Amino acid sequence: MSTQINASIITIGDELLIGQTIDTNSAWIGQQLNALGIWLKRRVAVGDSKADILQALDQEAAQSDLIIITGGLGPTADDITKPLLCNYFNGQLVENQKVKNHVLQIFRKRNRPIIDANIAQAMLPNVCDVLWNEMGTAPGMWFAKNNKIFIALPGVPFEMKHIMTHEALPKIKERFTTPNVMHKTICTAGIGESFLAASIQDFETSLPANIKLAYLPQLGGVKLRLTGRDVAAATLENYFQTLITQLPHIVYATEDMPIEKAIGKLLLEKKLTVSFAESCTGGGISAAITSITGSSGYCNGGIVSYTNDVKINLLGVPAETLKQFSEVSAQTVTAMANGVRTKLKSTIGLSISGYLEVVKGKESEKGLIWIGIANEQTTKTISAIMPYDRERNCELAIATALNNLRIFISENY
Amino acid sequence: MSTQINASIITIGDELLIGQTIDTNSAWIGQQLNALGIWLKRRVAVGDSKADILQALDQEAAQSDLIIITGGLGPTADDITKPLLCNYFNGQLVENQKVKNHVLQIFRKRNRPIIDANIAQAMLPNVCDVLWNEMGTAPGMWFAKNNKIFIALPGVPFEMKHIMTHEALPKIKERFTTPNVMHKTICTAGIGESFLAASIQDFETSLPANIKLAYLPQLGGVKLRLTGRDVAAATLENYFQTLITQLPHIVYATEDMPIEKAIGKLLLEKKLTVSFAESCTGGGISAAITSITGSSGYCNGGIVSYTNDVKINLLGVPAETLKQFSEVSAQTVTAMANGVRTKLKSTIGLSISGYLEVVKGKESEKGLIWIGIANEQTTKTISAIMPYDRERNCELAIATALNNLRIFISENY
Repeated sequence: MSTQINASIITIGDELLIGQTIDTNSAWIGQQLNALGIWLKRRVAVGDSKADILQALDQEAAQSDLIIITGGLGPTADDITKPLLCNYFNGQLVENQKVKNHVLQIFRKRNRPIIDANIAQAMLPNVCDVLWNEMGTAPGMWFAKNNKIFIALPGVPFEMKHIMTHEALPKIKERFTTPNVMHKTICTAGIGESFLAASIQDFETSLPANIKLAYLPQLGGVKLRLTGRDVAAATLENYFQTLITQLPHIVYATEDMPIEKAIGKLLLEKKLTVSFAESCTGGGISAAITSITGSSGYCNGGIVSYTNDVKINLLGVPAETLKQFSEVSAQTVTAMANGVRTKLKSTIGLSISGYLEVVKGKESEKGLIWIGIANEQTTKTISAIMPYDRERNCELAIATALNNLRIFISENY
Repeated sequence: MSTQINASIITIGDELLIGQTIDTNSAWIGQQLNALGIWLKRRVAVGDSKADILQALDQEAAQSDLIIITGGLGPTADDITKPLLCNYFNGQLVENQKVKNHVLQIFRKRNRPIIDANIAQAMLPNVCDVLWNEMGTAPGMWFAKNNKIFIALPGVPFEMKHIMTHEALPKIKERFTTPNVMHKTICTAGIGESFLAASIQDFETSLPANIKLAYLPQLGGVKLRLTGRDVAAATLENYFQTLITQLPHIVYATEDMPIEKAIGKLLLEKKLTVSFAESCTGGGISAAITSITGSSGYCNGGIVSYTNDVKINLLGVPAETLKQFSEVSAQTVTAMANGVRTKLKSTIGLSISGYLEVVKGKESEKGLIWIGIANEQTTKTISAIMPYDRERNCELAIATALNNLRIFISENY
């Protein structure tokens, strides 16, 4: 058994603190470390202030074996981080000829004027290993102090990722004895987190100490992830299969993927095509389905029928149906689903109509949606209440429609 | 003049450290505090570990006046955070009847079974002010200790935002003497950040020390925010008007709003209607326009023509045009825009067709999109290259189409 290796991330930059930038780097780095079996213990963000950066370095080094620092190294950074790190590790800035040539070459290629701040990127502490930045001008730096490793990286996401992947992660694997960590993920839809947890409580209790179950809620469903540390692959697989059999009907994928991708695979496999008639979601269901590469192989398109005129003239909903049952009714979505299926020559037509919020109208109608799903033989209608505000109700309506489409395909094909 | 107020954010949850979740809450909270003139000094993320949470509380309380804690309060959270906070502030958990009724009501409405973990949400420390959570079952909590304020909030973004906006921020304003901070925001589209910065360099240099200009890049444009600290409203307004006049054509709003809302206001004001024929964006443009309350007053809907069959049969694009010029051409989007305008009886039709990525095909086609915008008298076509991956290219294509729609309306009405 290996001992636990703790890591910290320090992110530097005022733009993170005033909320101009969302920090996506930390999540990505967390994933990479987690895959290596290194525990990311803390993530800290501080501004472009010497005192705050120094304090963060001391605090994190006191509890982690590996400290990854991002940001503060670009040509327009206020020149705080690099000299500070150089000083912290008792080094001096010296020119690195290889980096300088690389910087000059980049500017020649881009045909841009070069300024002193760019050439200064080649001045590096003489106490670090340089981590080569193929994608930009600011190299990464690898420092060691009191048996702790510090890695400084530029904050631009694709430069940071490139240096991590090709330079830092291989060195980390070499330097630390990491445990054997494996993950297996199941995606479910249609059941809330607390109810799901109650239904697999016994399974969770039965897990050995080196296998953990994580609940990862998403809109309309929950992802479940089993993580094994220093465990045999067959043992983890056994628990994984047990978990799957405990959740009939609600598992839409046995690996990590969005539901629109799982539906795409189903449609392709069963050689079906689909089209959408959307009222309240305004095109959001079509947009989700077509966000997947290759969706033109099974999605013909759709009609956004935001007015009754479009429902009548393009989808062929009888005016009488709208008058008698209203736009938000089983009867209307039945006509819409069959209309779009016929008009766009698809095996399956899905329709949706609803009130995502009530501007004027009855409180009882708030959040009411109707979904219709039709093939040549049958039409299924589903109603649901969306309990949130307009934006989130729209997202939840899309997720609900997609999950019901998945169920319809499973039931009928 | 007021003294500086420092804040820290502590985010709790293993899912943040293993990289499952990208932390968007912190950026949003940072923006809100910044708007109040409170300086967010540090952001820290820790896992679901008692020792780590306690250490973070102590460390942040040592340097900040306001500590905002998010996460760890949901029904399946490992029951660490709430008892820990209760203990940290020397209180006891007692049942809050009002919260309990609210939880029961939520489950009745959603017609879902309720379990003990849900009811336990109503157990709250007797040493906090409850911050009402209208949107969910986990309330926020407001604690005071040694003249420092601690606010604990659930991690679900829309619940957190709702509690912050309606409960926490008003109390923060009351509790702290914040500086007199005023913001004025301009939204621009169609010009990149560096080019925009160069064009208003003189203006930026002319600003007095107590007025700052911030660039807030968004996809397809940049928001510019003037922030005045302890400055007269008329003075700030003067600089704001000067800034607007320096940016003719690219300002789409003189307050903070998404471009789809600005377009909706334009369409309503000029009594126009619009419809969309979308290929590559798959319904995303319709979905953006209809995300605005009241959009049924100017948006008739659209047709998602993901196949040539739909382009020909529903939009009336001549098969010959597709054959001769291809799906992605000025000729095809012209026919699509006029087709959807006529078919959906709108004043304006907008169409889009493009390659968001190249699976098979020529590298030169990568990211090429064509946009068509037509009214009865005229049709305008625009082409552009989207430089990113499929997902981001789709978002940028939507933003580009919307900005061109805005320009078309300004030029023709």
